[in-house]
Amino acid sequence: MTTAARPTTPPTVAVIGAGISGLTATKMLADYGVPVACFEASDRVGGNWAFENPNGHSSAYRSLHIDTSKHQLSFKDFPMPAAFPDFPHHTQIKAYLDDYCDAFGLREHIEFENRVLHAERLPEGGWRLTTERTGTRYADLLVVANGHHWDPRYPDFPGEFTGQSIHSHHYVDPWTPLHLMDQRILVVGLGNSAADITVELSQRVFRNQVTLSTRSSAWIVPKLINGKAADANYRTIPQLPLSWQRKAAQWGQRFTGSDPRLYGLPAPNHKFFEAHPTQSGELPLRLMSGDVTPRGNVARLDGSTVHFEDGASAEFDVIVYATGYNLTFPFFDPDFLSAPGNRIDLYKRIFKPGLDDLLFAGFAQATPTLFPFVECQARLIAAYAVGRYVPPPVAEMERVIAADDQLYRGHVLDRPRHTHQLDYFVYEHQLRTRELPQGRARAERDGAPGLVRTAHLHPVP
Amino acid sequence: MTTAARPTTPPTVAVIGAGISGLTATKMLADYGVPVACFEASDRVGGNWAFENPNGHSSAYRSLHIDTSKHQLSFKDFPMPAAFPDFPHHTQIKAYLDDYCDAFGLREHIEFENRVLHAERLPEGGWRLTTERTGTRYADLLVVANGHHWDPRYPDFPGEFTGQSIHSHHYVDPWTPLHLMDQRILVVGLGNSAADITVELSQRVFRNQVTLSTRSSAWIVPKLINGKAADANYRTIPQLPLSWQRKAAQWGQRFTGSDPRLYGLPAPNHKFFEAHPTQSGELPLRLMSGDVTPRGNVARLDGSTVHFEDGASAEFDVIVYATGYNLTFPFFDPDFLSAPGNRIDLYKRIFKPGLDDLLFAGFAQATPTLFPFVECQARLIAAYAVGRYVPPPVAEMERVIAADDQLYRGHVLDRPRHTHQLDYFVYEHQLRTRELPQGRARAERDGAPGLVRTAHLHPVP
Repeated sequence: MTTAARPTTPPTVAVIGAGISGLTATKMLADYGVPVACFEASDRVGGNWAFENPNGHSSAYRSLHIDTSKHQLSFKDFPMPAAFPDFPHHTQIKAYLDDYCDAFGLREHIEFENRVLHAERLPEGGWRLTTERTGTRYADLLVVANGHHWDPRYPDFPGEFTGQSIHSHHYVDPWTPLHLMDQRILVVGLGNSAADITVELSQRVFRNQVTLSTRSSAWIVPKLINGKAADANYRTIPQLPLSWQRKAAQWGQRFTGSDPRLYGLPAPNHKFFEAHPTQSGELPLRLMSGDVTPRGNVARLDGSTVHFEDGASAEFDVIVYATGYNLTFPFFDPDFLSAPGNRIDLYKRIFKPGLDDLLFAGFAQATPTLFPFVECQARLIAAYAVGRYVPPPVAEMERVIAADDQLYRGHVLDRPRHTHQLDYFVYEHQLRTRELPQGRARAERDGAPGLVRTAHLHPVP
Repeated sequence: MTTAARPTTPPTVAVIGAGISGLTATKMLADYGVPVACFEASDRVGGNWAFENPNGHSSAYRSLHIDTSKHQLSFKDFPMPAAFPDFPHHTQIKAYLDDYCDAFGLREHIEFENRVLHAERLPEGGWRLTTERTGTRYADLLVVANGHHWDPRYPDFPGEFTGQSIHSHHYVDPWTPLHLMDQRILVVGLGNSAADITVELSQRVFRNQVTLSTRSSAWIVPKLINGKAADANYRTIPQLPLSWQRKAAQWGQRFTGSDPRLYGLPAPNHKFFEAHPTQSGELPLRLMSGDVTPRGNVARLDGSTVHFEDGASAEFDVIVYATGYNLTFPFFDPDFLSAPGNRIDLYKRIFKPGLDDLLFAGFAQATPTLFPFVECQARLIAAYAVGRYVPPPVAEMERVIAADDQLYRGHVLDRPRHTHQLDYFVYEHQLRTRELPQGRARAERDGAPGLVRTAHLHPVP
């Protein structure tokens, strides 16, 4: 190993966001002795998992439990408490993240209530940040970890609805922000939020009439199988082709009651296991109990009437759009970088080829869950920052991006919901057995990445 | 067949109660041309299924769906509408019962708001009824169908609880009759009502802390298996010993996640399939999500503190007793007839040996459900009224009562909850293939039952 190739001082790093992606990146960078500042708009950590987060970026509703069991959820270096239930409540996830920060002293690296308003790449490399509380700041390396579940996406239905509309992002409970009792409610979407909110609002005690409309439909997998967390022992085997494993899962699907057609919902536009399924043990019960009316896609809106593609129509007081989120980077000039159609091509979902000093963390729809995925990404991010990992040349990165795209989502329709889906087990295996050793060999052979040192201009504390 | 043995005119029959037991009995009696008056305290039919029934005898809560699927539920002569969901809401059951009345013209036999205050057996046989609206009335034959799910039973815990208490019978929704938000709630019991109410009140949107305490525990079976009503194709095979079928079910149980120990609840005091299971797909989810704290039996009450048998204790604001019902006949003098410990020995759950002119309808905890069971009983009741069925002598009835008791519940603990459990498929098969033909042979051989005709005193209209 030639240490000569490494820079003597690590670059200064700015991390945007103190959600799970920003926290794991910050921890790993700090572990590696990298000067890191994590800029957080809110007064607290947790991002999406900080219910009623003052930064407006939490989509958690009051009743939210994580849909992935704690057996899959823990960070590898910080197990969840044994006393946690299999499916922790958001308050428990938040407490876990707070404990994580305290255990590893992360708060000293986090600048709370200091939103990054603008991030500008300097001509020579490095970053000038405009921050809310501390003005202009500089960093050598920027880690974007501002999350992808906070900017509501709405469908583009023709016509106009004259009732009340709300996105699931803003939904808190049946009384907040709208009073959703004695209402005719249309929920649009069939992701986990759509399922949870439909189940909640269709409870007879609220005296609503609830219709669920979906365009793409989805497979609905139970949270429990035979009294155990269904995903507790789930994993794909990275050494076997994913396509084989999809076939096996598709065969096994018939024993899980996950076909939405069983409950009057449309057929999914993809096969089982080709895209993130919806996890709900309760939605099938509600549909089988007649508490929810299943419908296909909306054709058009007309006053208080909603017309569906099957020709049916009905009157509604409220539409709840549980239609997902846009990938948005409000601190970048749109000319510099954006994600049109929710698509952004990133090498290992981290590197934007051609930009050495820009990294991303957490921008995938990882199966089974984002938690260990972002921790896995943090390892590569930190190794890069200290010069122990160098990515391949741009052309090779672009070739791999296309191959990974084919691997993870070549089989599904090109829809905003599926632009960045990924299998964690395959990803982690590739990173550990191939990417990190090969990147380390490149670093030793070619030297560390040529990051411009801007820190002397105004070091991040 | 000797018709000479039959009386020329059928007896007048009074039916007490217009719930499913009284309705099916009234229909069958009317079909057979028997003069029948059905006395109903309420202004409507449906009994337990008439939500907020003015007679106070409905235990339905606002969210109640029947726990048995419609595939098992229909009366044989009146199928449920195809449009009904698999697990109809109580409003749908009520509408079905109204349609049943209208289809068969039953309302002309029902005297609404005419509660039977007192039923006295005349020394020579026959009945003198004191009614609320029409004073004294007489009938030759009395059918008791006043239900067994309306008189709340409370456990006898030592000590005193100073918070609020309510029985599940009086529970309507989280705001009626008590405001059950932001409360520390103990639900006692693990029957279907306990499960439903626990699931409802433990929803995070109500911000309650819910504990579930059970003494006997129960197996918790899902309502859906593989996306279909779990009981849709369920039936016992009357030609095979029930003990074998229990063994088979006990083997299969391991694949249903029905063991309450999986969720932190105590072990049941009986094996799977030996007693009516609790049906809930949602309770396991709530327990696995940490929204409900499972506990064993209550040891004692002390102010706002409840001590459990495992030594734990906790403070509560409210106790919900979902602890079942007493078998009560308020119109009989207790000296004449009562059901101490919820036990009443009835031949085929219909005849009280020694009392020729008294019949019971609906007094069983039939698996899978009461609906076809009461219809089945109505056949025998009507056959008896018109002299086409005669029960065996008293000694034989008593022998069969003991044998049936052994068959249906010889294997379970002698608890009030299990005093009258019964397998519908076995019962129906025995009635159809043995009881009715043998009773008919007895009638032809020995003549019709010697019912005293009191109707001339004051005929039931």
